[in-house]
Amino acid sequence: MAPFRAIFENRDSRGRILLVCEHASHHIPPEWDGLGLTAAEQLAHIAWDPGALDLARGLARRLDACLVHAPVSRLVYDLNRAPDQAGAMPAQSEVFTVPGNAAISAEERARRTQAVYVPFHDDLHIEVARRMALGLAPVIVTIHSFTPVYFGAPRAVEFGIIHDADDRMARAILAHAPVGLKAELNAPYSAADGVTHTLRLQANPYRLANAMLEIRNDLIVTPAAAEAMADQLAPCLSAALATITEGAV
Amino acid sequence: MAPFRAIFENRDSRGRILLVCEHASHHIPPEWDGLGLTAAEQLAHIAWDPGALDLARGLARRLDACLVHAPVSRLVYDLNRAPDQAGAMPAQSEVFTVPGNAAISAEERARRTQAVYVPFHDDLHIEVARRMALGLAPVIVTIHSFTPVYFGAPRAVEFGIIHDADDRMARAILAHAPVGLKAELNAPYSAADGVTHTLRLQANPYRLANAMLEIRNDLIVTPAAAEAMADQLAPCLSAALATITEGAV
Repeated sequence: MAPFRAIFENRDSRGRILLVCEHASHHIPPEWDGLGLTAAEQLAHIAWDPGALDLARGLARRLDACLVHAPVSRLVYDLNRAPDQAGAMPAQSEVFTVPGNAAISAEERARRTQAVYVPFHDDLHIEVARRMALGLAPVIVTIHSFTPVYFGAPRAVEFGIIHDADDRMARAILAHAPVGLKAELNAPYSAADGVTHTLRLQANPYRLANAMLEIRNDLIVTPAAAEAMADQLAPCLSAALATITEGAV
Repeated sequence: MAPFRAIFENRDSRGRILLVCEHASHHIPPEWDGLGLTAAEQLAHIAWDPGALDLARGLARRLDACLVHAPVSRLVYDLNRAPDQAGAMPAQSEVFTVPGNAAISAEERARRTQAVYVPFHDDLHIEVARRMALGLAPVIVTIHSFTPVYFGAPRAVEFGIIHDADDRMARAILAHAPVGLKAELNAPYSAADGVTHTLRLQANPYRLANAMLEIRNDLIVTPAAAEAMADQLAPCLSAALATITEGAV
């Protein structure tokens, strides 16, 4: 199977922030035959992060940032999970079952890992290493969205800022969060839930400052709403970046 | 410039230990014109880890282990260093100066990073991910050698076992170290000296057990000596592995 390469935008940018959108796409390539889901399920939040790519593009333009995003639905392979995490190819996601993921052989796990996970993260790694070698001191910020209602319960938080071992960038973003947004650290979930794989893989080994942003998807459901959110968050990220000291901790 | 790919041996092995030898080679490709070093300097310990590859091969055979090793001298790019570490392309190594590394532009840093560092670590990453997806629960062990005399001072330690954040495998190896060897934890140097990059990049993000082994190079200077050392260390690694529990910490 041909590898599904990462998609790059603004690759020549010189800004320090490197945006990553692992759940940008709801595309399920034909060989997986929709994973047994209905057409509606294939467009639900379990398949992607609605609005996240539009928001990330808006931020990339405003911040002179490179953006790296996924070509394939997280239901085929969740790029923010390691190959040995059950959530990498989830058989169950919130209230949905995913028939095509119900009984995955070790060979199929390896096949999806090689076709989707490895190409994306190796492409991203090339960019991280290139920017480090050029002295651009990248700061990795991943852009996600979350569903306003989860297992039937509404979520009050609007802007979640999640960190892994290095909390510098996350705390700086929280300190500069737009006043109109209900912002919270490590909500609606945290590193303890196994959701910070990209940060662990791409930022921690290099001591690069990093954060994972989660926006409630009802706030970025249309391109215009995503643009308005980018207008709010771009100055927040710029201000946070200014408080992060150069280079390694 | 064509990428310098990692070299694999025993790739079909099913053993849990994945051996890595970042300093296996003293080869300086012609485009770097010997980095301005004499022929003798190009074969000195600053260019590679003498004996490490022979030892690693001996271990790979005895442990049914996959072995991944470097095609290029660490003076072109030290694969156990991140692109922003000065030691990645050292201008000075112990008592030797490296003329070809004296004034490296950002573009040349990026060029070597893309040609040597990224291909090796992405090739290694593919193997780590593949083994995880197959349920083989890899344990990464890097094989190095060190010079018996450093800045004029003899070193007493013979077998150094170095750990990064996860010390499980290193402590287990120390507990089973051959009785005839002067073994020591975190000697002749430690993670604080910035020498554990491969462990941080390839093992820590996945919570894979790992260790870095350093053998004094006068003990493995001939192929026969390296074989004899492999005879001693293989049972030590097997015993250590047996004490490491499956999967994540």
